[in-house]
Amino acid sequence: MTFPRKVKFDEHGLIPAIIQDASSGEVLMLAYMNKEALQRTLKTRKTHFYSRSRRKLWLKGESSGHIQSVRSIFYDCDWDTLLLKVSQKGGACHEGYRSCFFRRAKGTKVQIVGRKVFDPRKVYGT
Amino acid sequence: MTFPRKVKFDEHGLIPAIIQDASSGEVLMLAYMNKEALQRTLKTRKTHFYSRSRRKLWLKGESSGHIQSVRSIFYDCDWDTLLLKVSQKGGACHEGYRSCFFRRAKGTKVQIVGRKVFDPRKVYGT
Repeated sequence: MTFPRKVKFDEHGLIPAIIQDASSGEVLMLAYMNKEALQRTLKTRKTHFYSRSRRKLWLKGESSGHIQSVRSIFYDCDWDTLLLKVSQKGGACHEGYRSCFFRRAKGTKVQIVGRKVFDPRKVYGT
Repeated sequence: MTFPRKVKFDEHGLIPAIIQDASSGEVLMLAYMNKEALQRTLKTRKTHFYSRSRRKLWLKGESSGHIQSVRSIFYDCDWDTLLLKVSQKGGACHEGYRSCFFRRAKGTKVQIVGRKVFDPRKVYGT
């Protein structure tokens, strides 16, 4: 299974993918896919991304076990952003939170509003 | 009012901002902010973006009237993505849909799942 030709990748060959919890509607994270990551995601129904810092394809949850099972995929009006609704095992954030968006703006400061669902030291062994 | 210094803008001076309906949880769009757009958004509580194609700052809704009133702002773990929960007037999408994510993937094809809430020809006069 592949994807419509209209899907646009940027000058680095990437497209941003918004990941949303399919049941709660909570936005969990934003990550980037290259063509191969999108193809593997469509084929396996598990999210795969391209890490810009590590310069490699990765299966979300490959080290933590916190897999994202894809329920549905949406393309936006400009074909340059993806929205994936998923079932998230554990937490999406490498810092132990359910969602990466655990910092709410309070003026120039932030308030931690997310809840930790795992201990990153135990999961990643760092 | 400004924002935490840790907020990271990319090599083009931009940060992606996910826009979510504060009441329904529906993801409406993804757009990009530069520093000035973020500052104006924080100050006015109306979303402002930087258009990469038009190379200018814009107030969302400036021509359509479909303003987004900001209810809350979140920074992600890496400080390189924003999530804004908003009250959306009319529709977020310039094609007349409530959300830009109105195309659901069906193999290599798509199914239109969004509902049109306005007629773009009438609103934009094109």
